[in-house]
Amino acid sequence: MQDVVDFIHTNRDRYITELKQYLAIPSISALPAHAADVKKCAEWTADEMRRVGLQNVKLVETPGNPIVYGEWLQAPGAPTILFYGHYDVQPVDPLELWESPPFEATIRDGEIYARGAADDKGQVFMHLKAIEAHLKKAGKLPVNIKVIVEGEEEVGSNNLDEFVRQNKPMLAADVVVISDSAMFDRGVPSICYSLRGLAYYQIDLRGTKSDLHSGVFGGAVANPAMVLAQILAQMKDRGGRIKIPGFYDDVRELSAEERAEWKKLPFNEKKYKKDLGAPKLAGEKEYSVLERVWARPTFEVNGLLSGFTGDGAKTVIPAVAMAKISMRLVPDQNPDKIGQLFDAYIRKVTPSTVELKVTRMHGGKPWITEYSNPYVQAAGRAIEQGFGRTPVFCREGGSIPVVSTFQEELGIPAVLFGVGLPDENAHAPNERLDLTNFHNGIVASAVLYQEIAATK
Amino acid sequence: MQDVVDFIHTNRDRYITELKQYLAIPSISALPAHAADVKKCAEWTADEMRRVGLQNVKLVETPGNPIVYGEWLQAPGAPTILFYGHYDVQPVDPLELWESPPFEATIRDGEIYARGAADDKGQVFMHLKAIEAHLKKAGKLPVNIKVIVEGEEEVGSNNLDEFVRQNKPMLAADVVVISDSAMFDRGVPSICYSLRGLAYYQIDLRGTKSDLHSGVFGGAVANPAMVLAQILAQMKDRGGRIKIPGFYDDVRELSAEERAEWKKLPFNEKKYKKDLGAPKLAGEKEYSVLERVWARPTFEVNGLLSGFTGDGAKTVIPAVAMAKISMRLVPDQNPDKIGQLFDAYIRKVTPSTVELKVTRMHGGKPWITEYSNPYVQAAGRAIEQGFGRTPVFCREGGSIPVVSTFQEELGIPAVLFGVGLPDENAHAPNERLDLTNFHNGIVASAVLYQEIAATK
Repeated sequence: MQDVVDFIHTNRDRYITELKQYLAIPSISALPAHAADVKKCAEWTADEMRRVGLQNVKLVETPGNPIVYGEWLQAPGAPTILFYGHYDVQPVDPLELWESPPFEATIRDGEIYARGAADDKGQVFMHLKAIEAHLKKAGKLPVNIKVIVEGEEEVGSNNLDEFVRQNKPMLAADVVVISDSAMFDRGVPSICYSLRGLAYYQIDLRGTKSDLHSGVFGGAVANPAMVLAQILAQMKDRGGRIKIPGFYDDVRELSAEERAEWKKLPFNEKKYKKDLGAPKLAGEKEYSVLERVWARPTFEVNGLLSGFTGDGAKTVIPAVAMAKISMRLVPDQNPDKIGQLFDAYIRKVTPSTVELKVTRMHGGKPWITEYSNPYVQAAGRAIEQGFGRTPVFCREGGSIPVVSTFQEELGIPAVLFGVGLPDENAHAPNERLDLTNFHNGIVASAVLYQEIAATK
Repeated sequence: MQDVVDFIHTNRDRYITELKQYLAIPSISALPAHAADVKKCAEWTADEMRRVGLQNVKLVETPGNPIVYGEWLQAPGAPTILFYGHYDVQPVDPLELWESPPFEATIRDGEIYARGAADDKGQVFMHLKAIEAHLKKAGKLPVNIKVIVEGEEEVGSNNLDEFVRQNKPMLAADVVVISDSAMFDRGVPSICYSLRGLAYYQIDLRGTKSDLHSGVFGGAVANPAMVLAQILAQMKDRGGRIKIPGFYDDVRELSAEERAEWKKLPFNEKKYKKDLGAPKLAGEKEYSVLERVWARPTFEVNGLLSGFTGDGAKTVIPAVAMAKISMRLVPDQNPDKIGQLFDAYIRKVTPSTVELKVTRMHGGKPWITEYSNPYVQAAGRAIEQGFGRTPVFCREGGSIPVVSTFQEELGIPAVLFGVGLPDENAHAPNERLDLTNFHNGIVASAVLYQEIAATK
């Protein structure tokens, strides 16, 4: 193993040179003008997989962008790791805020600045380089490995679920490893073992067939914008508790151990508030900020639209009012069941003076892997060797829908092993990746394969 | 007087020919592309004033469109009427919904179809023709008359207040007559003796310095869209009563006589609801529909905007949320005092988790003239002679800001004497004016001058 690690240290500069080539391809999946770049990036990813020594590398066509697949399955009896990442990137607007061109990777103060550096090309590359180190130095990997790198993560992974469903035998594995997230903080490597789920809805109310003059008709008809406000106000009490009956029934309470662990994390509430620019934090008083965002469900209004919203004044009673709302869900809430409870409650609180339409937009189950899981523990040891520090075990408040997909379709646990930093602007100008974390991540990935092999 | 009325009957066809010329000028004040047409229409109005025999006719320049002024002051000792109308019109979009071109007046089924037919050229023309009939047949008017026709009514009458303030001696009169409204219903001529006032505000809330990912931060910060809903929900109770403390203190209660009169009006609640396309009417149960829209104050949400409002789903906690709100006011509420009560209350109910900005957009006092006023009674008799039916006395729910301007600046009562119909599409495609009402209106106007002369 020391040979492999030495090889990684020796090749440090070459990795950066190669990564810069990968980052130079503007594979923006959201913009049709970049379709050729996206295709080129898929091919580059496949070529790189071949270069590092993966076998049976292919582009799997989908109704959208191709999924790149590669494997190395020469370790009979050893566990099989499925690695997931993505080669597409976010748009770069507003371009004028970038301090260096987004597709000309530039190093400043030990960080490499480029769109995709952290999300997710840098983290995909980290694993490819770890695989390369094993195959170049030892001629083999201690585990079997299957790699899929998709091209639609930034536009909703629309074709991934179907791909996974259609290719279960090809993707069969013991554990899925995903590096598409951030560590808890600089110098605090972490393993994420739970994500929140999501239930997203659009609510449309109609009061009358057209907008009305508020002078002529005001007082005689329901105002759907006001009714919407009244409905939304009934979704939460003053303390931030969601009032949908049964909403909390399946919420897994935090263990005393988890709460104690999280209290030890280096979290500065004052700085957090200041960074957000919030006059005051809000939420359920009985839970800490980290508990609220990691382990408590939410009800959020994501958008509101009704009536006249331009400059000036227009005296209209809107005919319609719309809200986008979403609930973040925690283990063991189920988005279908929560959807039914929400639907029943909103129908109950909506007055008969308006017509209500509820549209389900999106749903995703919450995910949790016990951190006693042997693969999670193996990842912890790998990170410790790569970063020289014991990782912290934490949850994340967001949702990574593919994690649930793998869990459900393939029935395997996931290890979320991210080396980004929370302030690396994954979806904003001046995206970057810390090169020390990148390098330590390659070592940790190489060790991870060893540690996972040792679990069997 | 019979001579004058006979003259009007004899000239019926000529009036329509001339009105068509007036309606052919596309004097759309909202669209800069029509600036020359607006100017042309001002000049046409002035020329027409000269043709009917008014004196000292002039265009008074303003920072916006000119105000046309004319007078006939040869009746020493008789009352002076100030007539107000406007020569500008609404835009015509969507043009494809017009059954005949908006600026080629077309007669179908006894109605003249054109933009401006009812609002307000047809009604201005009605008075000019009544003046003409007196001057042509009798060589004089029984009253003194001053006419102002402005060109910015459809864009807020921005320069009228200043014009009135600057020209008080020129505009001095005993009563202002305004024909820019509709009668209660077809075959139900009416005198309007009260209008609601207005207090219009924009509310802006800010939660954080930028939009946040609802997964990463949901649960820890206030959501300004939700806070906005909670604030708005506290403005009204379930029964439609406004909860701002002191809001109703100055509301003049309806007299038993008024309520009794209104009950007799031919109002069909079922048809009203059906025409609006509302599943159900709403509002204060202790008041009838007409009482609610004419004599009760309101609190309406005119617009809502926050976060993501496009197609699909975006999991964002909005940084900001905005509402346009307005209150219709009734005698003797004062918009300044109501504004102070509103401001104090909204500050009280807004939590410290968000920043609140309240912007006053517009305000207008409610207006009422007792219908025992001798000029109102004179108008009633004139309408009875013009239309062959006793008019009903009613209020209107909207606001006509100039009415308060005249009342305050000149200290004179107003008579609202409209011959439009509620379904004549004043601001919509296929605007029209019933020609029988137009013709009866000319007779009524001619009689009105006589009746007002008789009050002294």
